[in-house]
Amino acid sequence: MSEFTHFNEQGRARMVDVSDKPVTSRSALAGSSIRVPEDVYLAVTQGDIKKGDVLAVAQIAGITGAKQTSTLIPMCHPLPLSNVDISFYWKTEEAYELFIEAFVKTKGSTGVEMEALTAASAAALTVYDMCKALDKGMVIGPTYLLEKTGGKSGDYYRETHD
Amino acid sequence: MSEFTHFNEQGRARMVDVSDKPVTSRSALAGSSIRVPEDVYLAVTQGDIKKGDVLAVAQIAGITGAKQTSTLIPMCHPLPLSNVDISFYWKTEEAYELFIEAFVKTKGSTGVEMEALTAASAAALTVYDMCKALDKGMVIGPTYLLEKTGGKSGDYYRETHD
Amino acid sequence: MSEFTHFNEQGRARMVDVSDKPVTSRSALAGSSIRVPEDVYLAVTQGDIKKGDVLAVAQIAGITGAKQTSTLIPMCHPLPLSNVDISFYWKTEEAYELFIEAFVKTKGSTGVEMEALTAASAAALTVYDMCKALDKGMVIGPTYLLEKTGGKSGDYYRETHD
Amino acid sequence: MSEFTHFNEQGRARMVDVSDKPVTSRSALAGSSIRVPEDVYLAVTQGDIKKGDVLAVAQIAGITGAKQTSTLIPMCHPLPLSNVDISFYWKTEEAYELFIEAFVKTKGSTGVEMEALTAASAAALTVYDMCKALDKGMVIGPTYLLEKTGGKSGDYYRETHD
Amino acid sequence: MSEFTHFNEQGRARMVDVSDKPVTSRSALAGSSIRVPEDVYLAVTQGDIKKGDVLAVAQIAGITGAKQTSTLIPMCHPLPLSNVDISFYWKTEEAYELFIEAFVKTKGSTGVEMEALTAASAAALTVYDMCKALDKGMVIGPTYLLEKTGGKSGDYYRETHD
Amino acid sequence: MSEFTHFNEQGRARMVDVSDKPVTSRSALAGSSIRVPEDVYLAVTQGDIKKGDVLAVAQIAGITGAKQTSTLIPMCHPLPLSNVDISFYWKTEEAYELFIEAFVKTKGSTGVEMEALTAASAAALTVYDMCKALDKGMVIGPTYLLEKTGGKSGDYYRETHD
Repeated sequence: MSEFTHFNEQGRARMVDVSDKPVTSRSALAGSSIRVPEDVYLAVTQGDIKKGDVLAVAQIAGITGAKQTSTLIPMCHPLPLSNVDISFYWKTEEAYELFIEAFVKTKGSTGVEMEALTAASAAALTVYDMCKALDKGMVIGPTYLLEKTGGKSGDYYRETHD
Repeated sequence: MSEFTHFNEQGRARMVDVSDKPVTSRSALAGSSIRVPEDVYLAVTQGDIKKGDVLAVAQIAGITGAKQTSTLIPMCHPLPLSNVDISFYWKTEEAYELFIEAFVKTKGSTGVEMEALTAASAAALTVYDMCKALDKGMVIGPTYLLEKTGGKSGDYYRETHD
Repeated sequence: MSEFTHFNEQGRARMVDVSDKPVTSRSALAGSSIRVPEDVYLAVTQGDIKKGDVLAVAQIAGITGAKQTSTLIPMCHPLPLSNVDISFYWKTEEAYELFIEAFVKTKGSTGVEMEALTAASAAALTVYDMCKALDKGMVIGPTYLLEKTGGKSGDYYRETHD
Repeated sequence: MSEFTHFNEQGRARMVDVSDKPVTSRSALAGSSIRVPEDVYLAVTQGDIKKGDVLAVAQIAGITGAKQTSTLIPMCHPLPLSNVDISFYWKTEEAYELFIEAFVKTKGSTGVEMEALTAASAAALTVYDMCKALDKGMVIGPTYLLEKTGGKSGDYYRETHD
Repeated sequence: MSEFTHFNEQGRARMVDVSDKPVTSRSALAGSSIRVPEDVYLAVTQGDIKKGDVLAVAQIAGITGAKQTSTLIPMCHPLPLSNVDISFYWKTEEAYELFIEAFVKTKGSTGVEMEALTAASAAALTVYDMCKALDKGMVIGPTYLLEKTGGKSGDYYRETHD
Repeated sequence: MSEFTHFNEQGRARMVDVSDKPVTSRSALAGSSIRVPEDVYLAVTQGDIKKGDVLAVAQIAGITGAKQTSTLIPMCHPLPLSNVDISFYWKTEEAYELFIEAFVKTKGSTGVEMEALTAASAAALTVYDMCKALDKGMVIGPTYLLEKTGGKSGDYYRETHD
């Protein structure tokens, strides 16, 4: 189990020591999605021009979700975030699918991959929550890391966004 | 936009009024998964007999995640939960994939679909967090509702678990 | 100091015992406002038809704020809320002033006045936050209870909304 | 809507990028107030020499409220605070009014105006909460920024404290 | 391991199912203490007649701590609390020791032992925090359950308060 | 009351100003314990080789508890933590006693004594929670600081671990 830095000498989980890591600029971009039926697609996009639309709520859920990452994920370090931004894209060729991208930046000793993944997940879950009265069969994800910059392990770019 | 009960007369988001809904027993079962490379699979499962293994942390993240649902999802009603249980299953035929099932029960005026979906998501995100030093390309989900019982809209069983 | 039920025999603060109070339907309506200069008014209202406008964020802040009341106010009882709704009204005769009304319902042993007041305050603070790059002199409030129904102390209707 | 830095290219709310802003010392002073009837004034001030008085609870609510700002206000950056201090002043000439001043300091990339405003609001709401059994008509606010130092936008001093 | 109800069929931790337990009145009383040197004792008790004394802060920390129990203790059920009260007693015969009693009530399906123990612990930790500039050697506890009423397992009274 | 830095000019509690303190590396080690009857000892240690054992949950509660310190303790500064680690040791000569050590590190302007003490307390409370169905008489603590390094007040090493 030596591969995992998350375990201490007793074989138990710990929050990894990052105190010797330098404070550098770091960013992460994560993607998620939610597949919806046509009536949900129409309701969301028609509401899109209205004031309090579904995606506005999901947007804010993504941002506040990023700030809750270290509360949700036990071994995550609490981090001051310097930027959180959520974007939405519809793909409607074969099915009605909403793509969600969450971008997070910090200056810190650890990366913000988990913050970006949590933001994207919170946004997708919120879309489900607000549309579940119309359809309970909506599918969230796949959810994955698209890019990451900064830190000792270097940059990462996902090869294909499947 | 009349299909959505989440909007008020000003077209803005609101927390739906459930005060006239009866308090009944409700449950929900949600599923998620995470696809990992072989070395992560081996590291996690070899650690599986150890004390502080990855899945033990993910398990607890799922349970504490269920309790944080109304903080994470803006329009969710805060609910007293009477039971949260997380199970894990590996599928290794074609790839190494960890399936996560989150079961939640309450006696309340609203369902616990969001609590189950959030629990499953938090567990999957935690596995990602603890293994990301080995591989950043792991894919979370799809995440969906498997079953739901109780409440006015009746029971729901997902037809195929894809 | 016998007038205050919030103090124990040692003269110290306590969370008041409500265990003998019946569970009844309760609601509260609170009002707040924020006075803004003309350029903020124009920017907010022109953005009003856009997707992620200022008031959409304030709306959600009000709803999530209501859910955080017992965390923010030390002696408040944690309560399951059954409905939270926020409305906005502009008055522009003498000055540019945004009125905020927060309506909260529960079935419980204590009232939801604090939840409504906290929701209205959180919404007003959020408008300030999002517009403070344009003007730091904006004034929040007055903030007060407009109505309250249910509970032993009976209904309350504020005489004049000043 | 180019005036607002809180919106991204899709016109949706985002947490503003502060990663290029230097870390500097910043402070903010906010004021709020609560107007109370004579019996509340007498009860609070007579209790003032006792151990667990109303203002002691409000004081702590202000401090813990400052720490909850980024949870309450969706677009606020989470910030490490280096100092929070709350002061109270009675004015009793024309009416019984309790003035609340909240002072907050940090070393960071963003200002602490919202933390000071939230602290003052939480303190005022707590006074309301603890006295509402005596009177539900108490009025909170106006609430505003009194001073701010540090940061690119420079210092700010409110001209008249109305 | 059949003695533990906190584990599921996979041998993993779960939140115990309490949905079949009746909602009854329950209370718990927990005790803790903190042993301090004479100068701390004098400083705290001389401050005792002042407005914002150490014990007033500890008192509120106990009450807000009780409300955070299900966030702090992973398998705890979130519960609406109907009463939280903290009392302090000094014993100064052999040493300077502050005794803390935390009393919690609810109507619910599970007991409030953990809420009382958490409240007493939070109060003791807060006294330590506020006096640690004077002495870092202060000792907290022992901390234990004094009484418990209600629920299927019946009442419990600790035989001797050691 | 000049000994206490936690009080402002009005004699009220404040969060101490640390903005002039340098950011340095700091660590703290705190200890707690829980005395259990033989059947609890056997159940916990026999479960010790299983996946979701009692100590795994307590371990995570300690880590997440350290992150909640500034929420639980009113005057604590919110801090980014760079390392949290929990260890367990059984002593079984005279009685069955589980010793818990919590180690916390940060780079910051204040020490992490409270984070270590809170982590140790949360771990001990969690053991109580998971075993209380077997015995309600278990005793937590004493809980105290074992070591502290960094900061103006210098290092601290507890003389005897009693």
